[in-house]
Amino acid sequence: MNKPFNIVGIDGGGTKTLGVLWDEKGNEVKRVEHGFANFSVDILQTKINIEKTIDDLVKDLKGEIYIVMGISGVSNLRNQDEYIKVLNSKYKALTIIETDGLLALYSVVRDSDNPVIMIIGGTGSIVYSLKEGQTNRLGGYGHLLGDEGSAYHLVISAFKTVINNFEANNKLDEFSKELLKLLNVDEVEDLKKLVYGVSKSEVAKHAVHVSALALKGNKKAIKLLENEGINLANQIFNAYKKMKTSEIVKVALRGGFVNKAPFVKEALIKKLENKKMNFEIDQTNLEPIMGAYYLGNKLKGSKKYGRY
Amino acid sequence: MNKPFNIVGIDGGGTKTLGVLWDEKGNEVKRVEHGFANFSVDILQTKINIEKTIDDLVKDLKGEIYIVMGISGVSNLRNQDEYIKVLNSKYKALTIIETDGLLALYSVVRDSDNPVIMIIGGTGSIVYSLKEGQTNRLGGYGHLLGDEGSAYHLVISAFKTVINNFEANNKLDEFSKELLKLLNVDEVEDLKKLVYGVSKSEVAKHAVHVSALALKGNKKAIKLLENEGINLANQIFNAYKKMKTSEIVKVALRGGFVNKAPFVKEALIKKLENKKMNFEIDQTNLEPIMGAYYLGNKLKGSKKYGRY
Repeated sequence: MNKPFNIVGIDGGGTKTLGVLWDEKGNEVKRVEHGFANFSVDILQTKINIEKTIDDLVKDLKGEIYIVMGISGVSNLRNQDEYIKVLNSKYKALTIIETDGLLALYSVVRDSDNPVIMIIGGTGSIVYSLKEGQTNRLGGYGHLLGDEGSAYHLVISAFKTVINNFEANNKLDEFSKELLKLLNVDEVEDLKKLVYGVSKSEVAKHAVHVSALALKGNKKAIKLLENEGINLANQIFNAYKKMKTSEIVKVALRGGFVNKAPFVKEALIKKLENKKMNFEIDQTNLEPIMGAYYLGNKLKGSKKYGRY
Repeated sequence: MNKPFNIVGIDGGGTKTLGVLWDEKGNEVKRVEHGFANFSVDILQTKINIEKTIDDLVKDLKGEIYIVMGISGVSNLRNQDEYIKVLNSKYKALTIIETDGLLALYSVVRDSDNPVIMIIGGTGSIVYSLKEGQTNRLGGYGHLLGDEGSAYHLVISAFKTVINNFEANNKLDEFSKELLKLLNVDEVEDLKKLVYGVSKSEVAKHAVHVSALALKGNKKAIKLLENEGINLANQIFNAYKKMKTSEIVKVALRGGFVNKAPFVKEALIKKLENKKMNFEIDQTNLEPIMGAYYLGNKLKGSKKYGRY
């Protein structure tokens, strides 16, 4: 008889570290949250928060332990192997560390081993793909060089639309007037205050006002939102071409913007259909941390430590 | 007989404060330079550098003194009137403070009082116009919302061109390969290092590499540079429409980018000609500080303190 085994999943991002413990049947046994985990922000504090989370989960645990972590900014952690050894020895476990994006990628439910394309359209945007265990990233160039198809990109595009309209005509059209009103500013000049010296996520929050105008039927607002959907579709299609696959591809849409802003998802799907891409939208929308359970099982099954 | 009078001109910007003293015949008597003057950066140090500059110029001076200053970020100086009183009393002078942009605008030589449009295309971009003593500003929304027609905007456009080419085709075209080589980076991913966490002017410096490729005949590089010229022309034309003038407009091109980068100025002029704008390029290209001399004379002539 096999020894019982446990999977510890850790999903670490800019705001929190989520930890989940599963038993070998896949039942969620425990769930905890601690502060942020992002190796680009603070390596020491990230390690502290990760270990606090694991501590809470592995107390009094019997049997084998597999720890699967997806942590933001993991490429900034030098000596990854050493840190893995520290964790393995501290918790008597087998540990792997990946990016939080990869965790999310493995949470996409597939029949057999379909290729997967996952797009995250939130404050920023990024595309991951997975085919036969090979992962790839597209985009992720940040707000100065990319982020097309994100809430931040929408807001900047909307503000530029207002500015261009004003500079060319010396007066405001309906869209611009309504948007300034919702933003609670008097003049086009004031848009600068909403963009400079504030965080990227502060800027991105104004996306709700464009959505509100679109839902009221404003054509410019609708067009701006549809454009972001088309931007995302183009990125997905680039990832699709790279995969060179004839199989049906599972497309997973993640992130608050692509899922909540009106017109974005619809424009995205229409564009992909026009491009005759062979795809299917992932409707399950499991939590990203479920990817840790999937990877943990693969790790266990492979009977070897390292790449699964 | 009138008392002799002297004009002190101060042109303060991010890198230095230039001061020039003219006698009443317009002869340059003295010229000095001190550290930066920018009220958006450091109000106290800016005041210190301004006063050091004036001190050097007014030593042993006889007769009336008119001080005309054009200082960056002057809108951030609260209590302007108080500071003017301080200077007037310290130097027994009549002082006015304007932006450095306005100083430059008044340095454009005109027959009679032609309207003027001045575009500054350097690291960033901005447009000023002057008609019958009325000045106007267009653009100046900064690098996140504008700066079209600047070195910074060119570099970001060039980097985006490389990224889009790479993401769509999974390989680099000639332009991208050559540009990465000149930038001394190995991969598209490395472009992020050249943009994030560095100053806007550091980013803008890479414009020389696009220029180098354009001069070697690379079509994409030429197109990128021409686009910036067209961007500037569109801004000039917006300013022109706003002026509602039938007179010939003096167009002054200022800033290192529009004057030194190849193809920009040519594309700009061609675009304005296509738009049938009634204009003439200012070829004199006087130093911006000459605007202080012009304004000083107007101030003297008007016999009143305040708006000239």
